[in-house]
Amino acid sequence: MKIFDRAGFPNPSRIRIVLADKGLESEITFVSVDLIAAEHKQAPFLAMNPAGKIPVLELDDGTLISESTAITEYFDNLDGAPTLTGRTPREKAMIHMMQNRAESELMSAVDGYFHNATSGLGAAMQPYLSPEWAGGKEWGQRQGKRAVRGMVYFDGVLKNRPFAAGETFSMADITVFAALNFADAAGLAIPDNLAALMDWRSKIADLPSVRNRSGQKFLPEDLKRFGF
Amino acid sequence: MKIFDRAGFPNPSRIRIVLADKGLESEITFVSVDLIAAEHKQAPFLAMNPAGKIPVLELDDGTLISESTAITEYFDNLDGAPTLTGRTPREKAMIHMMQNRAESELMSAVDGYFHNATSGLGAAMQPYLSPEWAGGKEWGQRQGKRAVRGMVYFDGVLKNRPFAAGETFSMADITVFAALNFADAAGLAIPDNLAALMDWRSKIADLPSVRNRSGQKFLPEDLKRFGF
Repeated sequence: MKIFDRAGFPNPSRIRIVLADKGLESEITFVSVDLIAAEHKQAPFLAMNPAGKIPVLELDDGTLISESTAITEYFDNLDGAPTLTGRTPREKAMIHMMQNRAESELMSAVDGYFHNATSGLGAAMQPYLSPEWAGGKEWGQRQGKRAVRGMVYFDGVLKNRPFAAGETFSMADITVFAALNFADAAGLAIPDNLAALMDWRSKIADLPSVRNRSGQKFLPEDLKRFGF
Repeated sequence: MKIFDRAGFPNPSRIRIVLADKGLESEITFVSVDLIAAEHKQAPFLAMNPAGKIPVLELDDGTLISESTAITEYFDNLDGAPTLTGRTPREKAMIHMMQNRAESELMSAVDGYFHNATSGLGAAMQPYLSPEWAGGKEWGQRQGKRAVRGMVYFDGVLKNRPFAAGETFSMADITVFAALNFADAAGLAIPDNLAALMDWRSKIADLPSVRNRSGQKFLPEDLKRFGF
């Protein structure tokens, strides 16, 4: 199997944690996509994923799967013993509910802030954002505020249970964790009074599947080039 | 089990199709939420779902599940024979991929258009949208254009396979179908040259779980009050 992504970026990091957790890293060939050159917005990549986003999984029969939730469902169910996406109907529902909240209130919000309220990935990506849109920067700043509200929300959740969706580590935790790292990279401050969220973050960072993630770092060279 | 929703609205209609498809309608007590009065943005409702959105499912033990994808996972897996969310890893991945695309490129886009570029649900809801945000209407219009691009995308998909995620009816079809009905209700024109999408729409409308959906109509009295 092949994965088209970029080491260290937010959604790729989610899938690399999933692969480590499921013991599947050795079955994947990674193909690096040059996001800084907007490779993911050009025709060859768009033919793989019309949404123009990484990561994309290519199965051995050529089937293309994009969207991190979908890729996670694939890998988590391959061995017939899903853990990250839930076993019972109630677990599946709780995990998908918290996954959707993490995606919309944190990951998408940080993404909107990064690409619209900061210089984002730089010059080559600008034509693919909102060049003609006067309100873009203001919208991006609103997304930053929304992301901070999302952090406060998850802090409240994590006061009452050990993981985002309940008693066990799931894809919802992975998304929250990747979004917080993205917030750091985007220069969006995490309020320092969110003790439950910070304790949980340390605990997640120390999990074997997160700590020993094939040498991947969350803050990529790419982002460092932009001064983060 | 209880569902807090509003008959005829887009996401509630998704879950009502799921319930009909799985033969579970008789097990649900529906509690109507007054969206026109912004009941879903007040403290009692926000205590159930901090995102302030319908539908919310309450299990008999008091567990609260929101997000339509999560509720669908719950009902579809209750009998141990999932069909709408996929059986194999590959089916699950394809369905979640297309579900996410339907949600982001169609349902969310139509929602953004409806609430920001039109008068939406009216006066009581205005304070919960973007009252201070000068760019709101322009952003809403951009979402309308994005929704039309989403329709063109799904027309292309449906030229090549009978259902949104492959050979069988799934939650991705339900989301696309509900989003097209929402577009009608919001006054957002569906391009009339999308023959594959229109043929598929007729086919879905004629499915027993869609056609005989407990007397629910997609265009609710609520929306009619606003001139749609």
